[in-house]
Amino acid sequence: MNKQQLTKNILRKKTFLCIGLDTDITKIPPHLLKEEDPVFAFNRAIIDATQAYCVAFKPNLAFYESLGVKGQIALEKTVDYIRRNYPDQFIIADAKRGDIGNTSEMYAKAIFVHSDFDAITVAPYMGEDSVKPFLVYPEKWVILLALTSNKGSQDFQLMADENGERLFEKVLRKSQEWATDEQMMYVVGATQGRMFEEIRKIVPDHFLLVPGVGAQGGSLEEVARYGLNSQCGLLVNSSRQIIYADSTEKFAEAAGREAQKLQEEMSKFIVF
Amino acid sequence: MNKQQLTKNILRKKTFLCIGLDTDITKIPPHLLKEEDPVFAFNRAIIDATQAYCVAFKPNLAFYESLGVKGQIALEKTVDYIRRNYPDQFIIADAKRGDIGNTSEMYAKAIFVHSDFDAITVAPYMGEDSVKPFLVYPEKWVILLALTSNKGSQDFQLMADENGERLFEKVLRKSQEWATDEQMMYVVGATQGRMFEEIRKIVPDHFLLVPGVGAQGGSLEEVARYGLNSQCGLLVNSSRQIIYADSTEKFAEAAGREAQKLQEEMSKFIVF
Repeated sequence: MNKQQLTKNILRKKTFLCIGLDTDITKIPPHLLKEEDPVFAFNRAIIDATQAYCVAFKPNLAFYESLGVKGQIALEKTVDYIRRNYPDQFIIADAKRGDIGNTSEMYAKAIFVHSDFDAITVAPYMGEDSVKPFLVYPEKWVILLALTSNKGSQDFQLMADENGERLFEKVLRKSQEWATDEQMMYVVGATQGRMFEEIRKIVPDHFLLVPGVGAQGGSLEEVARYGLNSQCGLLVNSSRQIIYADSTEKFAEAAGREAQKLQEEMSKFIVF
Repeated sequence: MNKQQLTKNILRKKTFLCIGLDTDITKIPPHLLKEEDPVFAFNRAIIDATQAYCVAFKPNLAFYESLGVKGQIALEKTVDYIRRNYPDQFIIADAKRGDIGNTSEMYAKAIFVHSDFDAITVAPYMGEDSVKPFLVYPEKWVILLALTSNKGSQDFQLMADENGERLFEKVLRKSQEWATDEQMMYVVGATQGRMFEEIRKIVPDHFLLVPGVGAQGGSLEEVARYGLNSQCGLLVNSSRQIIYADSTEKFAEAAGREAQKLQEEMSKFIVF
């Protein structure tokens, strides 16, 4: 999917919500454990109930990998299901990958050829040749970690060089040599508040993928105030708050209501 | 496996070779494509032919993920095969993972509970809480990226703060607060030459996992000269040079010969 299509979807549906499919088999409603593939059954119900209120789904690969082959099957079925039934959804592989060139090539093949994701999250530590192999696929995206939502973001990302430029700023600046805002987005945690102002000075036009609203404590209003650009430019992710809103047989309806609440809040900010 | 056992294996076998199982289905000998599981058939033959000359195997997960469910099955069979037949081998998941706490927990479960790897490579960008969930498993290891072998290592890893401390040095220093040399190793590329001297000042006792000998151009002699410590403290990886030494039906014997050559070179440095 290209940037124009994604922006059009946001304006049409009045939402920039991304729903994180961090599906943990120990947290899904117990009645689903009778199903042949409980993880996929859960995802399918969540997707159907929430798709009207979001523009993107983001399976976090760790949750599927923890189940081995069964998890891999559930993941592939989930991506196929979204692709077939809701072709307007942007599908992100939250994978935080990144390795030497010939290895990143293999990850890119896994995510964009074997599966049909639109984007992958990538860690920048290994630099240019670890990122570029993901950029050879037209209309596929790299979402590079910049300033993450967790406490550990302070350990290295805020390190400053002798001119005061911090590591996450260096990542934002340097990586613009590798791709434009038509193929690159950045992860910025919702918990970073005012830092969005600083970040928008370096990447005014890029989409930012923003996790950390909800369970991690970030504020949607703050993110919108400091992070929106003239074309929206935000995908705000919520996972646990939506997908685990209820653990009874009505879990999907509850997830739908939570997603709708966020969509309604978001719609106020879409005034372009 | 604990540090003492790994060191004992190195001294007994007079080798600190790690063999990278970066098995690419487009590069394995064509006659194997008739097999039901060509990747596993290739790995099994390579493992049998080389295990006498190495102390560790390192499947790179990207290569398996690029094949989806089939790749996952081949990977699990490979780890089980090594565990059952060669219990003295140290098995590394080369995965470069790292995410917020609850997600890294899931990756740890995938690698140490669902599979039975001894160690996982982890990217440090997201800091302490992205690394710690891997450290709760006794005798399981984190191998943290410090200074990698690729060109892109220069993009961010060499960034220096106002006191001249570089990012990779900060990673080496800071991460010692999270675990001792009984559970943490570091990735340092063989192409980094004299930098090993600098690194040994910060982490004199830790094992270093050293990729980049062979196809990537690093020199074993230089690595040994500057990287060895009093208990060896090195695992030097070779992948392509060994596993793709020959593409005929004699590929395994050829891989064995390449591994033996490296073992013989290494044995000269084991003089403790």
